[in-house]
Amino acid sequence: MTNDAHARPSGDAPEPLYDVNVPTPTHAERARTLVSRLTTGTLCTLAADPTGYPYGSFVTVAFDNGNPVFLVSTMAEHTRNLQQDPRASLLVAEGGSDDPLANGRVTLLGLCRKVEGDSSSARASFLATHQNARYYADFRDFAFWQLQVESIRYIGGYGRMSWVEATDWYAAEPDPLASSATGVIEHMNQDHPEALLLYCKAFSKATNITAASMTGVDRYGFEMSVVIPEGRRPVRLAFDQTVATPEEVRTTLISMLQEARARLA
Amino acid sequence: MTNDAHARPSGDAPEPLYDVNVPTPTHAERARTLVSRLTTGTLCTLAADPTGYPYGSFVTVAFDNGNPVFLVSTMAEHTRNLQQDPRASLLVAEGGSDDPLANGRVTLLGLCRKVEGDSSSARASFLATHQNARYYADFRDFAFWQLQVESIRYIGGYGRMSWVEATDWYAAEPDPLASSATGVIEHMNQDHPEALLLYCKAFSKATNITAASMTGVDRYGFEMSVVIPEGRRPVRLAFDQTVATPEEVRTTLISMLQEARARLA
Repeated sequence: MTNDAHARPSGDAPEPLYDVNVPTPTHAERARTLVSRLTTGTLCTLAADPTGYPYGSFVTVAFDNGNPVFLVSTMAEHTRNLQQDPRASLLVAEGGSDDPLANGRVTLLGLCRKVEGDSSSARASFLATHQNARYYADFRDFAFWQLQVESIRYIGGYGRMSWVEATDWYAAEPDPLASSATGVIEHMNQDHPEALLLYCKAFSKATNITAASMTGVDRYGFEMSVVIPEGRRPVRLAFDQTVATPEEVRTTLISMLQEARARLA
Repeated sequence: MTNDAHARPSGDAPEPLYDVNVPTPTHAERARTLVSRLTTGTLCTLAADPTGYPYGSFVTVAFDNGNPVFLVSTMAEHTRNLQQDPRASLLVAEGGSDDPLANGRVTLLGLCRKVEGDSSSARASFLATHQNARYYADFRDFAFWQLQVESIRYIGGYGRMSWVEATDWYAAEPDPLASSATGVIEHMNQDHPEALLLYCKAFSKATNITAASMTGVDRYGFEMSVVIPEGRRPVRLAFDQTVATPEEVRTTLISMLQEARARLA
């Protein structure tokens, strides 16, 4: 995994308010998590006409063990392109932030071919994600195609980007909290703002915090945006052990709160 | 302009309830309108490495007389790719519908090159759309790039797709009601459902309509989904003359209502 970032006049970067070596999802894990939550993307193929232009088309997609699966018609441009040249990539991009370039996105590159022989795994993955595709999945001109991922470009937002190794991509698992994170964050911010403040005071280096709101949670820990006299700063804290369910998050956060109160007493 | 569509067992297609020769936006106009409302897309380039894979990346975009303009860093993959090979395409895709394949999208293909010499037009177009890009527009590693559109693939949803001629693309203008259509539609459906019913009864071939709701409006006319005993059907009706503003829509709809009442009296 290599990292790169725009070289910018950074001024005096403020000292982090937390242990930056705290366990954090790898880019492979972040990328697998991102794609697990998305069902559409842009398929890039090579135009079958003499121009050979790269051709972007909108597709619905599902993932089968990390490889994108498509259900496409032989009448579609991208299918004609792939029949002539299997080189392809898929871009999937998150929405959400008002600043579009702050959102995460992943480009998966590889050869995209029609699934020959047993297509049951591709089919099951696709139809589990796109139930309403059942009605055309068996039309004669439609077939399942799969992109075999060879290289992965992950951009998590400003300054968080890398090429992910394919072995890391296939070994990584989407975050088990991916679908519940939003609910956990809303609950903590609405009902437990004092607890978030206590976590920071007990476990981070910030001594003069006046407010803290949760901005992210994953199997390894959680992130907050905290207010200190100089402005807002990020804080990340680790869970004692890897969690897999919202219930485990709840239990862990309660025991961390008890420990925080004991430390601060 | 050529049209194509999936060949499907259509059964007995119901007879249209309106004059299908009513003035309707061309695909060039629909495509120009679509892109005028969108500010992000997928840029497809050719990987500068030996694989030559088509590479999709997320970009912010603006349009300058129909040509996409980008503000990109020399550090970005797509910029490195374009420096080696200017062949590119841009996919822009609408959101909105629950069925992602029912949404409109446009692929613009052409050569994408750094704007040399006077970049004021590209710059003005881009910064008008992306105000917050002002702070990095003058960073040394950033520059404006423009894709010179050569061919255009328009997909308006199921069964509405074509290759648009470049001359038609450049001659077409985005619909003047693009930004106000949603408000007009909401207003008509909330406040004037009886008027919509009267338009259909007076100006369409539908004789047994029990409900009508507006689904679209453009410079040439408006579209409704109407309920007849057999189910829902689309109806499109023309304005007497091309309109350009919500106020002109209002005036025209009032005079059409008077005429409808006179016809039905």
